[in-house]
Amino acid sequence: MNRKGEEILGRRSYRSLRELPESPELVVITIRPQFFTQAVDDAIAVGARALVVITSGLGEKDDAGLQLQRAAVERCRMAGVVMVGPNCLGIADLTTDLDLTWGDFKRGELALISQSGNIGLELGQLAPAVGVGFSRFVSLGNQADVNAAEAIEDLITHEGTRVIAAYIEDFEDGRHFASIAARASAAGKPVILLTVGSTNASRRMAYSHTGAIVSDSLAVDAACRASGIYRVDTPLQMIGLAQVLLMPRRPNGRRASILGDGGGHVALAADRLVAHGLQVHRFSDAVSTRLAETLPPTAITHNPVDVAGGGEEDVRGFERAARIMAESGETDSVILTGYFGGYSEEQGAWAAEETEVAIAMTNATHAAGVPLIVQTMYPQSPTSRKFRELGVPVYADIEALAKALGKLISLAPVAGSLPLVGRAREGEDLPSVAGSLPLVGRVREGEEDRYFSVRNLLADAGIPFAEAHPARNEKDAVAIANRIGYPVVLKALGTMHKSDVGGVRLAIANDETLRVALNEMQARLRPPLFSVEREAPIERGIELLIGIKRDRSFGPIALVGLGGIHAEVFQDVAVALAPVTLEQASDLIRSLNGSELLTGWRGRPALDLGAAADALRILSEVGAAAPQIHEMEINPLLVTQDGVQALDARIHEMETDASSV
Amino acid sequence: MNRKGEEILGRRSYRSLRELPESPELVVITIRPQFFTQAVDDAIAVGARALVVITSGLGEKDDAGLQLQRAAVERCRMAGVVMVGPNCLGIADLTTDLDLTWGDFKRGELALISQSGNIGLELGQLAPAVGVGFSRFVSLGNQADVNAAEAIEDLITHEGTRVIAAYIEDFEDGRHFASIAARASAAGKPVILLTVGSTNASRRMAYSHTGAIVSDSLAVDAACRASGIYRVDTPLQMIGLAQVLLMPRRPNGRRASILGDGGGHVALAADRLVAHGLQVHRFSDAVSTRLAETLPPTAITHNPVDVAGGGEEDVRGFERAARIMAESGETDSVILTGYFGGYSEEQGAWAAEETEVAIAMTNATHAAGVPLIVQTMYPQSPTSRKFRELGVPVYADIEALAKALGKLISLAPVAGSLPLVGRAREGEDLPSVAGSLPLVGRVREGEEDRYFSVRNLLADAGIPFAEAHPARNEKDAVAIANRIGYPVVLKALGTMHKSDVGGVRLAIANDETLRVALNEMQARLRPPLFSVEREAPIERGIELLIGIKRDRSFGPIALVGLGGIHAEVFQDVAVALAPVTLEQASDLIRSLNGSELLTGWRGRPALDLGAAADALRILSEVGAAAPQIHEMEINPLLVTQDGVQALDARIHEMETDASSV
Repeated sequence: MNRKGEEILGRRSYRSLRELPESPELVVITIRPQFFTQAVDDAIAVGARALVVITSGLGEKDDAGLQLQRAAVERCRMAGVVMVGPNCLGIADLTTDLDLTWGDFKRGELALISQSGNIGLELGQLAPAVGVGFSRFVSLGNQADVNAAEAIEDLITHEGTRVIAAYIEDFEDGRHFASIAARASAAGKPVILLTVGSTNASRRMAYSHTGAIVSDSLAVDAACRASGIYRVDTPLQMIGLAQVLLMPRRPNGRRASILGDGGGHVALAADRLVAHGLQVHRFSDAVSTRLAETLPPTAITHNPVDVAGGGEEDVRGFERAARIMAESGETDSVILTGYFGGYSEEQGAWAAEETEVAIAMTNATHAAGVPLIVQTMYPQSPTSRKFRELGVPVYADIEALAKALGKLISLAPVAGSLPLVGRAREGEDLPSVAGSLPLVGRVREGEEDRYFSVRNLLADAGIPFAEAHPARNEKDAVAIANRIGYPVVLKALGTMHKSDVGGVRLAIANDETLRVALNEMQARLRPPLFSVEREAPIERGIELLIGIKRDRSFGPIALVGLGGIHAEVFQDVAVALAPVTLEQASDLIRSLNGSELLTGWRGRPALDLGAAADALRILSEVGAAAPQIHEMEINPLLVTQDGVQALDARIHEMETDASSV
Repeated sequence: MNRKGEEILGRRSYRSLRELPESPELVVITIRPQFFTQAVDDAIAVGARALVVITSGLGEKDDAGLQLQRAAVERCRMAGVVMVGPNCLGIADLTTDLDLTWGDFKRGELALISQSGNIGLELGQLAPAVGVGFSRFVSLGNQADVNAAEAIEDLITHEGTRVIAAYIEDFEDGRHFASIAARASAAGKPVILLTVGSTNASRRMAYSHTGAIVSDSLAVDAACRASGIYRVDTPLQMIGLAQVLLMPRRPNGRRASILGDGGGHVALAADRLVAHGLQVHRFSDAVSTRLAETLPPTAITHNPVDVAGGGEEDVRGFERAARIMAESGETDSVILTGYFGGYSEEQGAWAAEETEVAIAMTNATHAAGVPLIVQTMYPQSPTSRKFRELGVPVYADIEALAKALGKLISLAPVAGSLPLVGRAREGEDLPSVAGSLPLVGRVREGEEDRYFSVRNLLADAGIPFAEAHPARNEKDAVAIANRIGYPVVLKALGTMHKSDVGGVRLAIANDETLRVALNEMQARLRPPLFSVEREAPIERGIELLIGIKRDRSFGPIALVGLGGIHAEVFQDVAVALAPVTLEQASDLIRSLNGSELLTGWRGRPALDLGAAADALRILSEVGAAAPQIHEMEINPLLVTQDGVQALDARIHEMETDASSV
């Protein structure tokens, strides 16, 4: 259509949809915003089933635009019409002839969903350079009607799509999004997610941009863990990861073997692969010997394998070596690195021979069930192009290769050998958040004994706490201490961070010390109430922090970290969508970098991880069930050989930001 | 020369150097290895001053080759002739007409020294793609005569070189290498180092390759810290870092500001920059307002700055915004990200205008003393090429930009604001290792009281230890405990890792508990000796690990980490060339991730960092002076408000690998 009815690119145009001789199924609207409403109404009137609205200056611009946009969506929904956009860059389905974008997408098996036009464009350019093509492209724009979750849901059954890449700023209902992503993963279509908001600067940006308070980066991590989403940091990483996810065959484990011509390249590859979680084990003598028999005498054959200049004399050596490596049973992937790929840029017979060797290497490794992955100095050479045609990923940068493979391996569902922490197994549901329980009401009986209310709430739910009693004065405190027995701990309540302001005193051994400590705190802090507690055997255990935090999109997030002051310094924290089961809680704790401290550090006895996991399960259930709770944490939770003891707890409710004890 | 005397590429050849009508200054030898010796002798005989030996199959091949190579070097040195190689890929000096390589290097200001031919080749290809050219290229090969340190030393006064990039596997005399690199840094020519050996696999490779035991990665880190070397992990990172180091102007600090068209790109840039140590602060209202006045109403102006589609309507807006940002006094760099660069790929006036804007932005930011750095979706567009011509680094990948800028900033010598930890200031010498002291002899008086010998050695040197006495039996132990007062600690000596095998018992409160503990250890471990020690106030302090370790190339390395079991779990360790001064020791401790725990964590009192630094200084001096000491460590060193107490120590000597107490 064109309002003037002019001829466009040699074809007749119509003044209005209503003049069209036939009824369109899909209408693309690129008209100026003031004519948007009329165009939508016309499309509905002539029987269109779907609209793609490229027009900008609506919901993303101002309130008036948002009103127009909302009204249009309402009318579409009434009429059973779907709308992509507005403010989008179009859609394409390369498995059909539908291409309503500016671009010239190469056909392939990666579906791309993007909330940002320019980032979609960038991904659309990066992919073909490394041989990755698209099955579908959806620019979401303002997500006024069709949103990211719906676009992904539709891909689950889309035959041409094997991997899904999504750039998303606003997850809307994050838990629903995660459950759709989990279904896609379970259906064998992994989802790669790029998002923003890990810093104040980008959150500020997103807020100004769309008014959206973007989700906490930890909440996104929790959703990724729950649904098997691969999270990446940049467009380049997204395409790099798509390359390995699109391989005809993925590795069965972490063992990588390296083949190259030159010690520098193979050694660099080893360093980078190990840095990203791969294992580069020495081959058995049997395998090394077989390699040595087929390679020049200067070759190094124990993994990494270096043909040491042999490539120039006998390029077939690469093929023989790759075959032996792939068939060895001692590796899960063969990484070819360095110069190979460059001979095909020379003249003559060498060039053709190298490409033949590439084909033979690919066939041999694939036949052995082991993927071949290539880094080369010549990523655009004829040999490199041939590799890509055969489904072998080719990288220019060994770091990009190692990062992609490391990421792939971190979630790969390999029986027994790799962790499946918190990941949705097929048929398993993501945790749902139960309705509000009346529990939390009991916390609010008055600020001063709030600390005891939180303790009671969690203790009643089954988390063991160190014995503690409220004391209003010196006399109370001494009486309690004598009843529970020295040594005791004294806490001044009513301040946000007791231990930061000197409101906690450990290891009080007698009446005299208790009196002095209490009077000193009284004078300095004037607390409404004290707590006198039984001293816990801190030296015999490890301190954890367990908590729950509510995200606007993803709901309650369970969190565990190495506790005490180490938690904040080392940021060794793992997260999951709450509530978590006992098994998920246990997996979560085991996924900490410092988990070895609990499971028997250097031959020491293992601590009671089961009790710790149960405390996390309980806390996550209590927190998830009470929407008033914004944040709640126990820190420290002391884990010993004999169980756990919660030594402190605090809560933070939605309504009152400063209500933490 | 050609042994057959045939015509080569249309030019006459000679059968031997001796037939040459004139005397050559420099001879390139590419002859087969069996004729190598004769060629060297001929070159010396006809008066050559320098040889570049490309011939391979000598020192890197076998012992016979090594003999030939050594003999040739000896004769060269006698004759005052220098040799590069053998087994190298040639040299080039692009500031003259000397180009003895296979390649076609673009001229520029980066000097490249490489011990690997193929990695040199890869760097030679990556650089021109991003506009980086070379001043000199030296392929070192086997380093039989000229080595990396000499090649770098010569660059210090080489006028055409501004930045030095080196790929090195074997540092030979590492401390000498570091001192040369420090001189280059001090002379304003930063050194970027790529090396291997951070994993067993790459060390295995290097060992097989050259017989070299590559240096511990920590030792390389220590040398980098001491000499201001920038260490990178891959060839691509090396070139990425060279781009920012070659800028006409480097940033004065960590504050970055971001400009782009589209919320996605600017938010991603913010996340990546912050991840690499940059700061993306919100602009003051005054600056935001000035930006808002010159940009479209939809623009977001508080940093990141998003022209929000304004680029298409008014590409000059980028220039106005960049100028305001650079002149604001609120940023140390302007980062342009996303689509800009792409208009020049379109037809017509737009294209030319974008390039004009690029020139104006460059001039405006440089005039304000603030560097402009670009990430663009169109890194090869006319505008991007123009940026590079003007000295503005252009990246395709925002992660590469952020990583390079973060690395640059990590060492940038900015007064007051950035750390200069362990870095050689101009005119300051690297630590030299004093001659052997007779101290360590005293450690060797007998395995069983070795623990006390180490304690005495370090205590005599001035490190405070917790009071401890040897006990052979229960009666001794009880007597000691009563003399020093309960609570005490009991240790079973004579095993490598006491605490791992249950050979340490803390907080023993009375005779009875001591007797039980001692008898239990006696039965289980049969130690030759016990130590009874005064219990330290562990709960009032933080535990550090301090140590020294000797590297084959770099000599003694001082090491500090957050101590106890946390050291090994979190690997929060900092290293420096030993011995360290008190100031260097203090800087080293402050550079730990966990240093906040010592300097007043969340309002708590600061611990005695000075005493901790002094203990590290002393340990480093004792260890550096005694070459017999392979490793020595105190773990834990308890740091409290009132000083330090060493709670355990062990030593590891060169001769006896299992001699640790």
